[in-house]
Amino acid sequence: MIITMAHGSGGASTSELIDEIFIKEFGTPDHKKALEDAAVVEGAGRLAMTTDSFVVTPLEYPGGDIGRLAVCGTVNDLLMRGATPKYLTCGYILEEGLDSELLERVVHSMAETAREAGVTIVAGDTKVTEGNGGLIINTAGVGFVPEDVEISSTRIMPGDAVIVSGNLGDHHATILSQRMNIKNGIESDNAPLTDIVKNLIQPNDAKTTGVSTTTPNPFDVHCLRDVTRGGLATVLKELAESSNVRITLKEEDLPVSDEVKDFYGLLGLDPLYMGNEGKLVCFVPKEHAEEVLRVMRQSTYGENATVIGFVDNEAPGEVFVETSIGGLRRLDVLQGEGLPRIC
Amino acid sequence: MIITMAHGSGGASTSELIDEIFIKEFGTPDHKKALEDAAVVEGAGRLAMTTDSFVVTPLEYPGGDIGRLAVCGTVNDLLMRGATPKYLTCGYILEEGLDSELLERVVHSMAETAREAGVTIVAGDTKVTEGNGGLIINTAGVGFVPEDVEISSTRIMPGDAVIVSGNLGDHHATILSQRMNIKNGIESDNAPLTDIVKNLIQPNDAKTTGVSTTTPNPFDVHCLRDVTRGGLATVLKELAESSNVRITLKEEDLPVSDEVKDFYGLLGLDPLYMGNEGKLVCFVPKEHAEEVLRVMRQSTYGENATVIGFVDNEAPGEVFVETSIGGLRRLDVLQGEGLPRIC
Repeated sequence: MIITMAHGSGGASTSELIDEIFIKEFGTPDHKKALEDAAVVEGAGRLAMTTDSFVVTPLEYPGGDIGRLAVCGTVNDLLMRGATPKYLTCGYILEEGLDSELLERVVHSMAETAREAGVTIVAGDTKVTEGNGGLIINTAGVGFVPEDVEISSTRIMPGDAVIVSGNLGDHHATILSQRMNIKNGIESDNAPLTDIVKNLIQPNDAKTTGVSTTTPNPFDVHCLRDVTRGGLATVLKELAESSNVRITLKEEDLPVSDEVKDFYGLLGLDPLYMGNEGKLVCFVPKEHAEEVLRVMRQSTYGENATVIGFVDNEAPGEVFVETSIGGLRRLDVLQGEGLPRIC
Repeated sequence: MIITMAHGSGGASTSELIDEIFIKEFGTPDHKKALEDAAVVEGAGRLAMTTDSFVVTPLEYPGGDIGRLAVCGTVNDLLMRGATPKYLTCGYILEEGLDSELLERVVHSMAETAREAGVTIVAGDTKVTEGNGGLIINTAGVGFVPEDVEISSTRIMPGDAVIVSGNLGDHHATILSQRMNIKNGIESDNAPLTDIVKNLIQPNDAKTTGVSTTTPNPFDVHCLRDVTRGGLATVLKELAESSNVRITLKEEDLPVSDEVKDFYGLLGLDPLYMGNEGKLVCFVPKEHAEEVLRVMRQSTYGENATVIGFVDNEAPGEVFVETSIGGLRRLDVLQGEGLPRIC
């Protein structure tokens, strides 16, 4: 089946498309069997909401696809506020000519990733546009934030340790390899960070890390941020400005896999500016750094967590990296283009 | 300023775009001055969530534009569940070559429409893709549903009256006129239906209709549905099937403005299959029909509300229209394309 403009008409062909591709994977959002204009879901307390659109090409790549990406991007944004992600909406924009088998694989991957991340897809929408067989996905998400948990880009403090949850640059290197048609073993790190954040913020739910307390955020995590477009340097520069602190990294401590390091080296690219889609950077008081590192390493997708730097207030808003030969390099946000588009 | 790929990079140019175009209109979502990955908002009770993407061309048209449309579409979907819309997210997908002045007008219109509809835009995202100066907007929305309010496509009952909130087909006729470059006085009905639904479901908040009760849904509204893609016929056919009832319309009671009627007549199009973006159809027990009609006509955007038919259980799942010459025509959902795309 090839998608045509009729699939976006809102009439019979649209119903057919929704029944055959979306309902099959996601089920009907309500307990009722009818498809409503909006989903009614139970919930209370402090809500977190976010949205993201995904335009990555190719639509499928080693380690993931645009469906997995669209779930992880929004789930991870909610987690970065200390929220427990609960509900997602998805908007599919299909270009005429898209192969429905590819669409089915992407929708299936989205459904599987939602289950892995512990979220329910409660509402969706599909549009078809003129084009060339492409696909754009928007997701919006809602989560709930425990009382007394305040995790924010403004709360980083002097004395904090900077911890990254794993190797840098994998996703960007994967997309770049695909676009340049280079064969290698690099895979995207495309993943939901649910387990890491749950183990840090609500460890009473944790099964593996040995931390038992019902107090939320027992390690006093000040800030969490996922490392996406613009790479670690851009993310840290924005955070240093928001919290009015200096962040200093040690270059030799930055975790980058050998294959990714070689790949970027050949192309003259700096891993500090290359994006991930399954890594976070975490700021905690340095007296908790050891314990946080242990918890992260025992969590799914956190096995390569590493302390990479520290925070002080010597030069507010600045980020520096101590190079392996003892120099000090000032980092700024990414300038201009960070091609190819990675999400 | 012309949008380039650099505006989607996530780096400095993206910040510039967000600061200069989005923050200017929407403000920062949090009380803090920092832009977070997700917005944390207060709220409790039963949530309604929905999403919609908008791909209309042209981006601006008499009576509205894609920004107003993107707010109204999602707000109206929430209202159709009896929810009070509260929070919106928006995802902008910009094609390279888009004129930033057009974008500013659309963003401004979105902000104004959000204020009119009583919703807050709490999170946003922007991507830039290759293309030809186009613009796609996704919105997702959250609202709260009062306890004991159950408004659903499955709750229509024999004995219900069918009431439409105003003239049919205006939005579709507007877009069609623009695409065919026909000059006329037709304007889109593009509007949030907040006031009508509030006056029906939570009239204690109402100022003008003279209904004073703190009981939610005092007229026992069974079902609300906005009349969009596929037109009234498609909407009613879906509802008749969901509720397992027969719906019968009187053709002579269907409200269509003279200019729109003439326009469709010339083109051989049936107003029953043409979409609106600011009209709803409402099902209430017929003993409440008079009062509901009065309340709707006193509400913003409801001045032309009309009773157009009735519900029984003679032929479950079927929709008929009694023509002005006494015939009975069976209606089905829209088949194939409903071009041009109207939302």
